[in-house]
Amino acid sequence: MNKRKLETCFSPALYEAECHTNSIVVVIDILRASSAICTAFANGALEIIPVAEVSEAKAYKEKGFLVAAERDGFVLEFADLGNSPFNFTVDMVAGKTIVYSTTNGTGIIKLASSAYMTVIGSFLNIGALTQWLLKQDRDVLLFCAGWKNRFNLEDSVCAGAISEKLLESKLYSTICDSTLAAVDLWSLACPDLKGYIDKAAQRSRLRDKKLDDCIEFCLTPDYTSRIPVMKNGVLVGSIS
Amino acid sequence: MNKRKLETCFSPALYEAECHTNSIVVVIDILRASSAICTAFANGALEIIPVAEVSEAKAYKEKGFLVAAERDGFVLEFADLGNSPFNFTVDMVAGKTIVYSTTNGTGIIKLASSAYMTVIGSFLNIGALTQWLLKQDRDVLLFCAGWKNRFNLEDSVCAGAISEKLLESKLYSTICDSTLAAVDLWSLACPDLKGYIDKAAQRSRLRDKKLDDCIEFCLTPDYTSRIPVMKNGVLVGSIS
Repeated sequence: MNKRKLETCFSPALYEAECHTNSIVVVIDILRASSAICTAFANGALEIIPVAEVSEAKAYKEKGFLVAAERDGFVLEFADLGNSPFNFTVDMVAGKTIVYSTTNGTGIIKLASSAYMTVIGSFLNIGALTQWLLKQDRDVLLFCAGWKNRFNLEDSVCAGAISEKLLESKLYSTICDSTLAAVDLWSLACPDLKGYIDKAAQRSRLRDKKLDDCIEFCLTPDYTSRIPVMKNGVLVGSIS
Repeated sequence: MNKRKLETCFSPALYEAECHTNSIVVVIDILRASSAICTAFANGALEIIPVAEVSEAKAYKEKGFLVAAERDGFVLEFADLGNSPFNFTVDMVAGKTIVYSTTNGTGIIKLASSAYMTVIGSFLNIGALTQWLLKQDRDVLLFCAGWKNRFNLEDSVCAGAISEKLLESKLYSTICDSTLAAVDLWSLACPDLKGYIDKAAQRSRLRDKKLDDCIEFCLTPDYTSRIPVMKNGVLVGSIS
């Protein structure tokens, strides 16, 4: 049996769409888009429409949609919600369609949409996601959102945690140095994940803007078993 | 006193030239361009003219220059030398100007040439390079060549080794996650560098092509105290 291939991409600027048309691509943007999306579905959101541009988000708002939109961490003035997972409460999102636009995350979800399947990964759904991936017979790309095209620690460490489990199963193999590095970084971060992420640049950025209250939550494993998946340009939370 | 800024770039696709016009950029391509260049100057080469295109290298050859040129590890048929450090013997290179074109390394040297200063780093000159950097009053970018725009382990680990020394001095600070990751990877690789690099993808690629005889040499620290530096589009080995 051929082993499934496991790869990791550290930045949208390194994404090679043509290599992954037959793969499951897992989009990872821990601080904060993928954590917020997982929380929204855990709290009953019906679907999320990712839009890259502010103008699109605004047009949806004018049509009466619930809109989550931020740039550089701050909620846009016309939006109902920002990018903190704490915004996506049951009261706010249960049974709703949410239009969602962030600095980084939503552009990447769109970039990944040419893959066989695009799903959202975070620490919040890591156990369910890993178990689900093991049941598929597909190559996997872990696609780290990074920050403005740069490598970041929190997404890489999450990719490492997922990779460790997939490689342990012996169903996957990798010759991808990014995956090997991610697993090694996870081995260092694992004993004290919050302490490790404390040194990450995005941690400082959010702290400087007083937007760091959700970081500990974003590092919580297995808060939900729902796996957001892209279907016809819209994220639904149907895989669980 | 403001600390000097230390950053690391993991791939040419992530290089932001406009951010580094006042920095010293250290180009790192361990397997094998930067190791070969350091060896050439250790063995008395006068200067190295990096050219990105095969056609340029060929034109120089026709003018009578000594030409080192490879693509994907293999010496081009018109060239005198390939990309193995073992090609750059005293007999072959002492007192000579070498025209040099590789799959990856020389394009990156050209890309970095808008920096304040562009130098070549490898394990072979790591001690001298680090000591020299400490004496400059400049921000530093460690520019990993990677492989066909992808992250690689051997360049990242070398960047980590350099970063560890620069950060220990307290003259530098970093808020760059790539630098932090590189230092962490180096901490894991350091006790057995050859064993660690054994798992790297480029190691396998070179082994498959039977081009891996020089890997142990490329991981040797402090083989030379010469630091190749770009001057007017040409590398010279004058800093020592």
